[in-house]
Amino acid sequence: MTQRYFMELAYCGTQYHGWQIQPNGHSIQAEIEDKLSKRLRQPVSILGSGRTDSGVHAEQQFAHFDLLEPLTDLEQLTYSLNAMLPPDIAIRRIFPVEPDAHARFSAFSRYYRYRITRQKDAFRPMQAYYCHFPVNIDRMNEAASILLKHTDYQSFSRAKAAVKHFHCTIDLAEWRPETGTDMTFHIRANRFLWGMVRAIVGTLLEVGQGRMSIADFEQIILARDRKVAGRAAPASGLFLCEVGYPKTVIP
Amino acid sequence: MTQRYFMELAYCGTQYHGWQIQPNGHSIQAEIEDKLSKRLRQPVSILGSGRTDSGVHAEQQFAHFDLLEPLTDLEQLTYSLNAMLPPDIAIRRIFPVEPDAHARFSAFSRYYRYRITRQKDAFRPMQAYYCHFPVNIDRMNEAASILLKHTDYQSFSRAKAAVKHFHCTIDLAEWRPETGTDMTFHIRANRFLWGMVRAIVGTLLEVGQGRMSIADFEQIILARDRKVAGRAAPASGLFLCEVGYPKTVIP
Repeated sequence: MTQRYFMELAYCGTQYHGWQIQPNGHSIQAEIEDKLSKRLRQPVSILGSGRTDSGVHAEQQFAHFDLLEPLTDLEQLTYSLNAMLPPDIAIRRIFPVEPDAHARFSAFSRYYRYRITRQKDAFRPMQAYYCHFPVNIDRMNEAASILLKHTDYQSFSRAKAAVKHFHCTIDLAEWRPETGTDMTFHIRANRFLWGMVRAIVGTLLEVGQGRMSIADFEQIILARDRKVAGRAAPASGLFLCEVGYPKTVIP
Repeated sequence: MTQRYFMELAYCGTQYHGWQIQPNGHSIQAEIEDKLSKRLRQPVSILGSGRTDSGVHAEQQFAHFDLLEPLTDLEQLTYSLNAMLPPDIAIRRIFPVEPDAHARFSAFSRYYRYRITRQKDAFRPMQAYYCHFPVNIDRMNEAASILLKHTDYQSFSRAKAAVKHFHCTIDLAEWRPETGTDMTFHIRANRFLWGMVRAIVGTLLEVGQGRMSIADFEQIILARDRKVAGRAAPASGLFLCEVGYPKTVIP
């Protein structure tokens, strides 16, 4: 009988080729598996709630792993992992869960934020899209509200994505002004397709600049064709910020 | 007749050997002089309000420079300098000042903040002192209040400092709790000696850990000897955050 653990963590994705282990890339998953295996003196594999692309950040990400023998001091493990890991990966906590709790399949929602800024920020340089052109937030919000009325998002999915269907239920899609000159797009759905948030943001920014009408935006959704949507916004502005689990998984 | 300009800027000091140009170091001053000279097609020297050490940050720093011919579009210059400069240096504004306005000599106060955190922050990894031991903020504030009663700070000055005297008038010295597990020390004075804030913070942290009494802290000030004070706190937590000028210099 194995014991399953959840790990809650955050990372700045700038220095990594995304979450997922890759043959020639430096990934967050590989970094954590390496340190966790060293610390526990056994090979440990972790499985995340989902992948984030190269340069994308996570304010909250979850992963699970299984061990044959239960751990005794989880706070101490968290502390020493943080000391071993690079400064841009932070483990928030490690806690035991039921054997059928699954970091990916048990998650019922993913919440992303996309941050754009008009002012250069020396302290968080690769953690926003430094956007010098003016955009109309009301127009962008009018277009964003259309996202709640549809469910097929093939137009915002990367062409190569090997998925069975393109249905996603979006229940939040809103631009909010932040302090100073920042603006953040908030979007939550049961699932996201590959590259979906960045494609949506890139297209909404065209609406915000007046280069695309709100009707055009809806036509893009209906077209179910990635080629008609706008360019993907840069990875630097994107943060996975909340993963939702039932209370039976995380009380 | 030359025209003098002030430049207001911010930087993350992690990647630099401090503000000041050095023979074998990568400095913020050198980076700005290089880009400003290229942009204006003439050699331009800048003079800062003060030096910051290797790894120390600035949320607000000022520098001045002189030009033979006045500039026409200062917003455009600010924009293009920001595009040319590395992402961790941000120019806020450039504005003309009177010929006798001096970035260093006209400044009547310097305000520093020192940030300690108990939680690893993946997004601003080298912008705090990651401090895992518990400290008593009330004790540290009791000791900090003593700083307002004295003026000779030789005990907190680096031995090699070539200054005429060690007198500084401190009018603010206070630890404040921040959101979550952070804590920030605020200190403002007319001038600071080399390494002074980090030496004060390092010594106050010993008081906060109960390894030094409040009476000991006052004895250290009275001793006028750097050897009796505590170890300097790491550079990563230190931010120059405000430089005060008379309204005749910056209206």
